Amino acid sequence: MERIDDLQFDGLKIIQNDDYFCFGIDSVLLANFAKNDIKKNSVIADLGAGTGVLSLLLAKKANPKKVVEFEVQKEVYDIAVRNIELNKLDDKIEARNIDIKDVDELSKYDVVITNPPYKKLGTGINSDNKVKQISRFESTATTEDFIKIASKMLKSKGQFYMVNRVDRLTEIMQIMWKNHLEIKTMRFVHSKVDVQSTMVLIKAVKEGNTFMKIDKPLIIYDENGEYTDEIKNI
Amino acid sequence: MERIDDLQFDGLKIIQNDDYFCFGIDSVLLANFAKNDIKKNSVIADLGAGTGVLSLLLAKKANPKKVVEFEVQKEVYDIAVRNIELNKLDDKIEARNIDIKDVDELSKYDVVITNPPYKKLGTGINSDNKVKQISRFESTATTEDFIKIASKMLKSKGQFYMVNRVDRLTEIMQIMWKNHLEIKTMRFVHSKVDVQSTMVLIKAVKEGNTFMKIDKPLIIYDENGEYTDEIKNI
Repeated sequence: MERIDDLQFDGLKIIQNDDYFCFGIDSVLLANFAKNDIKKNSVIADLGAGTGVLSLLLAKKANPKKVVEFEVQKEVYDIAVRNIELNKLDDKIEARNIDIKDVDELSKYDVVITNPPYKKLGTGINSDNKVKQISRFESTATTEDFIKIASKMLKSKGQFYMVNRVDRLTEIMQIMWKNHLEIKTMRFVHSKVDVQSTMVLIKAVKEGNTFMKIDKPLIIYDENGEYTDEIKNI
Repeated sequence: MERIDDLQFDGLKIIQNDDYFCFGIDSVLLANFAKNDIKKNSVIADLGAGTGVLSLLLAKKANPKKVVEFEVQKEVYDIAVRNIELNKLDDKIEARNIDIKDVDELSKYDVVITNPPYKKLGTGINSDNKVKQISRFESTATTEDFIKIASKMLKSKGQFYMVNRVDRLTEIMQIMWKNHLEIKTMRFVHSKVDVQSTMVLIKAVKEGNTFMKIDKPLIIYDENGEYTDEIKNI
């Protein structure tokens, strides 16, 4: 079923459909992680944009020149188009219904951001719903595809932002380095301060020099099970 | 000047000399990080052992069959020998005065642990004192040497533990992977919960399968500038 949610930032609203894939806290955390670092007037690509939550947030928070959404699924892309209209962001955001593997724009973007499908095909429970399946599993493109294509699309010294699961971190880091994306900052997300991290926010720079920073941990809940101040602010 | 410090664990004492290099909190954190994971009756190598703080702590905390200290500097090794005697641990710990690059024991150890010199030669302020110089800088052996030699000394599936600076993490991870040490757990040390990490504790397994875990952050001071409960317990 379709619904409209309030993104609780500057009047932003988002149409989503329960039958498909609804955005999670990971996209909101990623937008927030990236926003302060993205230069004004940047041209941003959002790979596997879904209904466009990342792009909507960045259009408002990061002062970009333009954000281009790439989404392979027609049903999801259609909602993304309506979200751009609903938020009157036609001058900032453009949505394209295309498989990222067919994108042939080289060294064009200042920033590429992505919240790709986390799950490998054949792991966990596959969804009967084809649209959900493609949003959550590496059906049409793998994480390696996302990283490779991001690297190609970026200008030299362009920024790459991604959120992913910690249990895929080894693979992701190795693929990034192989594709000339130097990892500059990682921020680990912990549901509480005393548990291991399950999610990681990564910033890399194409052809950047070697220097990694581990940011302060991002803690979701405090000891009383309430959202921490940082999460409330986001 | 020489002094004897109380390690505040099970009566352990350590002789150190201010003119050389005194152990820091990093060694204590590393011993603690490793101790629960090391199997009883393990044979452990401590590379660049210094006066032996790691080995002394592990001999008491990890129930090993044997700990072998490798230390290149004669003056420091001499103190290490006296520390073993002082703590009556002659049956558990053996110290060797040798350059790790001359160690030729292959696939012999269950565990290799090291707190190597962090600083590259030519960075920061070099010390006039030759003994301090070798303890802090990569004078006689580089981090790559330490990792390579550790990998050779370990049995297949043997554990490797290291503490190092986060600003060398990219280099360290790449060297470990190149030397068949699969990184299994990293724990980031933050002086406070709201600042970036400067130090990292790493566990790797020789020829292990690919699966990385990011442990809960290790926080040294709470918001009032007091040691956290975890640090007090250590």
